[in-house]
Amino acid sequence: MRNLSVSERRKLLEKKLRIRLENTAQFTLDPKKISNRNCENMIGATQVPLGIAGPLKILGEYTSREYYLPLATTEGALVASINRGCKAIRESGGVQVMVESIGATRAPVFKVKGLKEAKKFVSWVEKNFNQLKKTAKKGERYIRLLEVQPVVLGKNVYLRFVFNTSEAMGMNMATIAAEQIVQLIKAKTGIECVSLSGNVCTDKKPAWQNIIKGRGKKVWAEVVLPKKVVRRVLKTSPKKLTEVVYRKSLLGSAIAGACGFNGHFANIIAAIFLATGQDIAHVVEGSLGITTGEVVERNNLYFSIYLPDLMIGTIGGGTSLPTQKEALSILGLGKGIKGEALKFAEIIGGAVLAGELSLMAALASGDLARAHKRLGRRGK
Amino acid sequence: MRNLSVSERRKLLEKKLRIRLENTAQFTLDPKKISNRNCENMIGATQVPLGIAGPLKILGEYTSREYYLPLATTEGALVASINRGCKAIRESGGVQVMVESIGATRAPVFKVKGLKEAKKFVSWVEKNFNQLKKTAKKGERYIRLLEVQPVVLGKNVYLRFVFNTSEAMGMNMATIAAEQIVQLIKAKTGIECVSLSGNVCTDKKPAWQNIIKGRGKKVWAEVVLPKKVVRRVLKTSPKKLTEVVYRKSLLGSAIAGACGFNGHFANIIAAIFLATGQDIAHVVEGSLGITTGEVVERNNLYFSIYLPDLMIGTIGGGTSLPTQKEALSILGLGKGIKGEALKFAEIIGGAVLAGELSLMAALASGDLARAHKRLGRRGK
Amino acid sequence: MRNLSVSERRKLLEKKLRIRLENTAQFTLDPKKISNRNCENMIGATQVPLGIAGPLKILGEYTSREYYLPLATTEGALVASINRGCKAIRESGGVQVMVESIGATRAPVFKVKGLKEAKKFVSWVEKNFNQLKKTAKKGERYIRLLEVQPVVLGKNVYLRFVFNTSEAMGMNMATIAAEQIVQLIKAKTGIECVSLSGNVCTDKKPAWQNIIKGRGKKVWAEVVLPKKVVRRVLKTSPKKLTEVVYRKSLLGSAIAGACGFNGHFANIIAAIFLATGQDIAHVVEGSLGITTGEVVERNNLYFSIYLPDLMIGTIGGGTSLPTQKEALSILGLGKGIKGEALKFAEIIGGAVLAGELSLMAALASGDLARAHKRLGRRGK
Amino acid sequence: MRNLSVSERRKLLEKKLRIRLENTAQFTLDPKKISNRNCENMIGATQVPLGIAGPLKILGEYTSREYYLPLATTEGALVASINRGCKAIRESGGVQVMVESIGATRAPVFKVKGLKEAKKFVSWVEKNFNQLKKTAKKGERYIRLLEVQPVVLGKNVYLRFVFNTSEAMGMNMATIAAEQIVQLIKAKTGIECVSLSGNVCTDKKPAWQNIIKGRGKKVWAEVVLPKKVVRRVLKTSPKKLTEVVYRKSLLGSAIAGACGFNGHFANIIAAIFLATGQDIAHVVEGSLGITTGEVVERNNLYFSIYLPDLMIGTIGGGTSLPTQKEALSILGLGKGIKGEALKFAEIIGGAVLAGELSLMAALASGDLARAHKRLGRRGK
Repeated sequence: MRNLSVSERRKLLEKKLRIRLENTAQFTLDPKKISNRNCENMIGATQVPLGIAGPLKILGEYTSREYYLPLATTEGALVASINRGCKAIRESGGVQVMVESIGATRAPVFKVKGLKEAKKFVSWVEKNFNQLKKTAKKGERYIRLLEVQPVVLGKNVYLRFVFNTSEAMGMNMATIAAEQIVQLIKAKTGIECVSLSGNVCTDKKPAWQNIIKGRGKKVWAEVVLPKKVVRRVLKTSPKKLTEVVYRKSLLGSAIAGACGFNGHFANIIAAIFLATGQDIAHVVEGSLGITTGEVVERNNLYFSIYLPDLMIGTIGGGTSLPTQKEALSILGLGKGIKGEALKFAEIIGGAVLAGELSLMAALASGDLARAHKRLGRRGK
Repeated sequence: MRNLSVSERRKLLEKKLRIRLENTAQFTLDPKKISNRNCENMIGATQVPLGIAGPLKILGEYTSREYYLPLATTEGALVASINRGCKAIRESGGVQVMVESIGATRAPVFKVKGLKEAKKFVSWVEKNFNQLKKTAKKGERYIRLLEVQPVVLGKNVYLRFVFNTSEAMGMNMATIAAEQIVQLIKAKTGIECVSLSGNVCTDKKPAWQNIIKGRGKKVWAEVVLPKKVVRRVLKTSPKKLTEVVYRKSLLGSAIAGACGFNGHFANIIAAIFLATGQDIAHVVEGSLGITTGEVVERNNLYFSIYLPDLMIGTIGGGTSLPTQKEALSILGLGKGIKGEALKFAEIIGGAVLAGELSLMAALASGDLARAHKRLGRRGK
Repeated sequence: MRNLSVSERRKLLEKKLRIRLENTAQFTLDPKKISNRNCENMIGATQVPLGIAGPLKILGEYTSREYYLPLATTEGALVASINRGCKAIRESGGVQVMVESIGATRAPVFKVKGLKEAKKFVSWVEKNFNQLKKTAKKGERYIRLLEVQPVVLGKNVYLRFVFNTSEAMGMNMATIAAEQIVQLIKAKTGIECVSLSGNVCTDKKPAWQNIIKGRGKKVWAEVVLPKKVVRRVLKTSPKKLTEVVYRKSLLGSAIAGACGFNGHFANIIAAIFLATGQDIAHVVEGSLGITTGEVVERNNLYFSIYLPDLMIGTIGGGTSLPTQKEALSILGLGKGIKGEALKFAEIIGGAVLAGELSLMAALASGDLARAHKRLGRRGK
Repeated sequence: MRNLSVSERRKLLEKKLRIRLENTAQFTLDPKKISNRNCENMIGATQVPLGIAGPLKILGEYTSREYYLPLATTEGALVASINRGCKAIRESGGVQVMVESIGATRAPVFKVKGLKEAKKFVSWVEKNFNQLKKTAKKGERYIRLLEVQPVVLGKNVYLRFVFNTSEAMGMNMATIAAEQIVQLIKAKTGIECVSLSGNVCTDKKPAWQNIIKGRGKKVWAEVVLPKKVVRRVLKTSPKKLTEVVYRKSLLGSAIAGACGFNGHFANIIAAIFLATGQDIAHVVEGSLGITTGEVVERNNLYFSIYLPDLMIGTIGGGTSLPTQKEALSILGLGKGIKGEALKFAEIIGGAVLAGELSLMAALASGDLARAHKRLGRRGK
């Protein structure tokens, strides 16, 4: 079915399977652009409801203002919950955010004769770092090789390349640049690359390495909520809320062998990623991270989240699709301006805090099941 | 903005932010249905390109026939890659699939005075299991409590409830049923529930507990590929492909501290979940699992995948949305027929194998970067 | 050097290497007994200082009285620290302990053709459980097969056998019993065992499976310390001590990707294991587990530890060696009386709490470095 | 009992408990030296059988010759097994070893107001690194601060100090130096240290951070065994042995959630550590690491081990005790000569490979249970 048009392909399928795909047929996407970039064998489009939460007051290094958050989701109560978190944040003066850019990573695995050759190879790589850096740019003009992290294991050498990919999430760029470097290595040293990705990257799998070293962007967010705001907006007390964080996110995660010590980072990440054309499989990385909560001076609530591995971009991937681009425009992003990705990371950090705060409060006040009953029920 | 209509809300936002949301305004969703179930503060819809791969020949216990796979994605090369995997599978006679239904889990955390009370409480729960079972049904008619797994830690008791939720993914049902049980416990024992979710569930965070005990559906899939098919369709050899599995998915993941010993389960899971209205945050769980590859008799290739924690449903959540329902109809699902979810799990198992096989082959043949260059490039 | 006596072997070594092994030559062990059971190619004995802490007041189900703890260690400050913990416990009325016997585990890995055979095999195992149980007893009279936990992964089936090994730690017994079962399986089904241990046991490696399912004995211990005792004996306050637990054992471990959410369980386990003839490599399992601390009513301190995987015995292994037997006699154990191992587990639980409490207090009061300077310094 | 002599204390205990501690009373240790350094409240000594394996042919960067290995153990079959591994290595020309010195680590946790102060603090630390370095030396003349790795999490800043501790394992030195730095920080910045150890060290708990960053010494070892040696000495074939490595150490560990992808590193580490006066609790770290095995040219066997976190020293701790010193002398170590610790690490790497190789062979040939029956049985 490769050489058919979108509608021909869809119609063929409808006929073959005796089904109707009328809604799938409704879209404003341009199939030609998409088939070369985003999706092969296209038959139409999936529509996901887009809601809005906010405004969320961000106090960051790269941006300090209020934002409406575009959230694409099919899960009832999520937008309402994030919205409530935004309100609590607003009434507390805003969410403080901090970002550190780590970079996109790709780690080919090379096969060597043994430890001696491994050592020699690693040493060659270190000595020729500048050449590797230049070569990376051949494949991708906008990429910058920041670092090589070598890992030796028996007959295997993994070279974890860390790249600055500017405003793009950058895994495609990183893959292409890594391929260039691999070919240089082959030509210069004769050492064979077994696989362009050796899983030490680590992409789209939860991995302690990413948590410990960071990847993409590292983002922290925090807020101090006056106890009155906690009471009025979140319907609970700082003491109760911190107890949920302690017993659930820390002790509960610890005893379950979780890498994520949080409530539901993944929900918020998923909704923003879907709305703004990010790679949805990176929700995996977005689920990692830790929530903390403490009762501080005057019985106020200190609440924080930490995302060690946020993979995002404001250009590339799905960001140029029509509705995704519009969602980015709601955030004032998507124009390819330098520094946009850092702003985006700050906004996401704040949004994750808003959603996390609201969930913890719902749990502390015994409100979760009620919210789900009201907002998340399947039909009838 | 809560009391506005979808278009009023969108227009207000357009005015406020001086942006245009024309594409977002185009949708066939029914806002009224959605606002009570799937998304609050709706302003429109996100469109994601929907592609098709297959046919994929499934050989399972619950279904044995060919399927076209609906895949919603913005990441170029993914549909093409899964499609190639389907071809290799077809030419090898089909993918063998095995499913085990574990259930949806929710684990409230209770606060007790100490170990003695904890022991007494756990013993009470075990003795009153039948009453708990009945109570669960009060909240949710279609749910069945299968098991309670208690965990004691200091002053905390976690009760991990495992529910059969029929054709629904069931986390909402599980939450509501758990709330009923919590209230019964409170009334009968006086023991306080600190949080309806104690993270021992564990939902939307990667957790070893889920891998080890399983959750939702456990799915295995395997295929034996004649070496000729590997050569002709996948452009590599069984030996090379197994070497990638060994050095990348096993050794690479081991040394990176990954919970996922695979290439890109998350990509395939994300595309199917998005197309069929699953909860996108459950891509986290879908990224867990292990790929194996071995050269077997006649130098053929044995290839398998294992998904310990697949959270899916054919009713509830986003499955009743128009385009999502149509995607399910491509798979002959979505009618609420008993056993559908098991069929769906088998199809997903096969699809994950197809995508995983194709990626491993692309890595083995050195084709990954080229595919990304050709299909996955961002626009100029 | 295999056929030499202990002294001949030692002397040969002294001559060959031109060294003196005078202290190594001093021992009261009986070389004949040892060479067949505990150590081959013996040349003498290693002496480790044995200290005493206590009395420790245990309040358990299997024993409720005061104990002196035998602790073999070369690390200064450890005995003193545990001793201080014992004092704080005594002045608080004793340490409450709870034990659950899980069992020794051994998991052979079998190779099958694929998923269908795997399923059939697992089903055969379940149906023939009673025969497996009988067979286990052939190899080892005192063993009882409690459960088989099957794990299927591609062409591999792991059967995790859980055994009751009475008062012995039991890994040798479990291995021999597993071998008998493996031979039965081979004879009855023709299915090949690739390795008698398939690492799903999991023995002597940290593994989430053991934490989640438990292994050997699960032990919990707790104490409520009046704030006066915390002040007078531990030189700190409940608030400060719980803050150390929270920031160090919970948050610190979480962000470091630790499986052990505690301060130094391993130190205490190592000293008791060494003194009483346990398998020292099982210190690995003893390092797993979680410490909790909370300020409770009247600003008192609730403190607890949890050991999910304690591998111990009062007979077998090194327990019959002269000094080890004497150390067990200090605890009133080592006579092979039924239930001894459960008592031993309770005592160890209490001892770990004592040592852990004292370390946390030393950290809270800023006393750790000073203690190390005073007691743990190497000679000039 | 603090002011009693060793024999007085022991006799008091004998009287109180009506037991005899005759063997415990036999030792050549000097109680006076010990009570200030290694063990408080001493009542005697524990004797552990000391066996010898080897010679083991080491091919390293720091040493290249044959060694006899001192192994203290109570577990039958261990010395014999390591001995067999040494033989296979000798007949294959020796074991190639590689070492990298990382350093001892200690990570205090500091409490800050929030992210802004955290950032300022981290920046202060980086700017004042040289002063920190000098301060570290105040506490400990022989220590060198190599690096500070900061981790920010909410109100917490962990500073992971990495120290070169020369020939000592160095955790005591590191603790004392860290204390000096903490006091400097307090004086200069006013920032409070909550705990001198914040578990990001991470000491004596299994932690992914240590595996990924390395700690103490990183050691790799490898050998290529001619298939004839595998057959004659190890009673199996390269193919069978690699299959055990693949199905047990890789797949089995992966599915069990293990951090250790090996057979029994902990056994070998425990026996050497005990013999040579290392800190036994560091067996935990020694259990981490990965074994690989591959069939290579001419159907020979490539076999390797990797230890990411080996905590050892040739001075300090228990190394100066009489029998421990003698055990070190068997290895030509313990004289405090510069570079000794690196030699020691190379020897341990080779020993671990020898023991691991022999176990994998025993499993491959179905010999494990038999060996345990013959050598490891408890007394009648």
